Amino acid sequence: MVRKKPTLVSLAEAIGVSRQTVSNVLNNPERVKPATRERVLRAIEESGYRPSAAARQLRTRRSMDLGMRLRSEADGINGAVMDRFLHALTEAAQEAGYRLTLYSAADDEEELARIDDLLHAADLDGFVLTGSNAADRRAAWLQDRGVPFACFGRPRGAGPASAAADYPWVDVDGAAGTGAATRLLLDSGCQAVGFLGWPPDNGPGDDRRSGWLQAMAGLLPPAKLNGLQAAAEDTVPAGAVAARLLLEQGAEGVVCASDSLALGAFAYLRTALPPGRQPAVVGFDDTPVAAAIGLSSVSQPITAAARHIMAVLAHRLSGRPEDQGPRPQLVLEPALVIRTPYNLGGRPGKG
Amino acid sequence: MVRKKPTLVSLAEAIGVSRQTVSNVLNNPERVKPATRERVLRAIEESGYRPSAAARQLRTRRSMDLGMRLRSEADGINGAVMDRFLHALTEAAQEAGYRLTLYSAADDEEELARIDDLLHAADLDGFVLTGSNAADRRAAWLQDRGVPFACFGRPRGAGPASAAADYPWVDVDGAAGTGAATRLLLDSGCQAVGFLGWPPDNGPGDDRRSGWLQAMAGLLPPAKLNGLQAAAEDTVPAGAVAARLLLEQGAEGVVCASDSLALGAFAYLRTALPPGRQPAVVGFDDTPVAAAIGLSSVSQPITAAARHIMAVLAHRLSGRPEDQGPRPQLVLEPALVIRTPYNLGGRPGKG
Repeated sequence: MVRKKPTLVSLAEAIGVSRQTVSNVLNNPERVKPATRERVLRAIEESGYRPSAAARQLRTRRSMDLGMRLRSEADGINGAVMDRFLHALTEAAQEAGYRLTLYSAADDEEELARIDDLLHAADLDGFVLTGSNAADRRAAWLQDRGVPFACFGRPRGAGPASAAADYPWVDVDGAAGTGAATRLLLDSGCQAVGFLGWPPDNGPGDDRRSGWLQAMAGLLPPAKLNGLQAAAEDTVPAGAVAARLLLEQGAEGVVCASDSLALGAFAYLRTALPPGRQPAVVGFDDTPVAAAIGLSSVSQPITAAARHIMAVLAHRLSGRPEDQGPRPQLVLEPALVIRTPYNLGGRPGKG
Repeated sequence: MVRKKPTLVSLAEAIGVSRQTVSNVLNNPERVKPATRERVLRAIEESGYRPSAAARQLRTRRSMDLGMRLRSEADGINGAVMDRFLHALTEAAQEAGYRLTLYSAADDEEELARIDDLLHAADLDGFVLTGSNAADRRAAWLQDRGVPFACFGRPRGAGPASAAADYPWVDVDGAAGTGAATRLLLDSGCQAVGFLGWPPDNGPGDDRRSGWLQAMAGLLPPAKLNGLQAAAEDTVPAGAVAARLLLEQGAEGVVCASDSLALGAFAYLRTALPPGRQPAVVGFDDTPVAAAIGLSSVSQPITAAARHIMAVLAHRLSGRPEDQGPRPQLVLEPALVIRTPYNLGGRPGKG
């Protein structure tokens, strides 16, 4: 007897499930209960079933729709960088033939509920995650369900980043940025450069602090360095308050984790320093506010990050082998934008 | 013989088209050629066909997906207001059970091509248009095809706005905002208040200029007033150049059509005015930059506008009678945010 080539229908009959279930296991695995999925996948492997190219094309017909959470902005200053990311991602997606669907969520758990809805109601092909954090279980949730995704931000859990990085992500080397900012202030004559950041256990915040610490290590005694770091919530007034503390500890310049904090520090120091002395402050994210007041700031390569994330996701969705596509994990270098403050005070500006 | 109640199938047979074509005429009319659409609609009217409630519900099953163009930002300062609109619309859409799909386009024509794609590829239920202008044919295009939509921005074509307003739109009274800004500067002691806007034939720009002109009319001779208005492209450097011209014409204060222009004017005047005199400048859109440098600015009620647009669109998509829904055309009042400049110069600020 000649063994017939298995088809979706014969497979389904042999396993005792519907044709649709077999199709879902292959194309929308998240819709199938894990136990059923395992049983069907085992049977498919044992049968030697191989989809024909045409059948695959028909079955892998995609919605060409990707999802991303639109986060609410803290104060409109630092939100600007995520809006730039959204603009860049929309254009990159469109060039690749994809649409971008937005959703909002109060927290990661609500985001997962929204993603679950979207997978079922709208057949989304994949997701772009932002704002990874230590307690993040979104990546694991998506991996469990076989949903394609890519992250802006490297994994921030326990263990070294490289070990946890078994999914696609693009990140920016924040430590390199704050390191360069610290050296800028050291080169311009400051000796005690302080760091104004966010409370600990914030992935990007810890990364940015580490760049400052590395640049300062060995230049000042550890006890002195300890006094030169302050943490504040990410607002302009909190930045001003923290800058006062740093000034009292002898800071001659301040590297900040955000432009919101930097604006607060800049405004406070302009009033606190002797007339004629420009505050030595560097911000992070090169927002329009930094440009407006002439603040040097670390600039993330947002467009490059969005384009790479889209390329990785499109490659994954194409079903081609991973080793033939763009690098699934990538750290990009930021640039330091050096400015002389606008002469807002009517006085010659000097860095 | 008892006349049988017509059904979709019997109608299609009688007209000589497929059942799908009849269904499309009722639910996706844009997919049917105009001649066929007319023929089917006439036959439906003559037949007395009335869809049952259940059938209607089944047939009018929507994608619950709305589309909006994400415009590229000019300089990141004024783009902030449209990003705020997007955030507010995403949340309002989600509360109403809709998703929001973004697309980008270089101009209105390309936007129509994108909308056409999206109607066919993704079954979008409706669209939110932004940036209406005099040559705008997007609204007519959508109306011709029976595609639900609503605009942020009133119609800016020939004829009075109310006559052209046979589709839903929400706008903000820009003239009221610049009028209030002009009176603020007059009340604080300026006599020759200038206006720094965009080149003519820009709907919102003309609207904002008219508010200044109305507030100044009768206070200065027309020839003098004419010299007190300047037009510039919407950037910070162009604002600085135009502010110099206005200063040469004797302007003692400047009302601006945007915060980008206002920042340029503010920075120029800080250096050009005698020490101790704060520039009397008011911006438009109350962006983070205005807050950062302590610039008074006109604030649009962006969240209210987005929520109303979503309410009007959701009502229209519900198929309920228009007179039972929210007002399909609405002009909202802006607010003037009055600030004392931050003491960026280390000198007491005075408005």
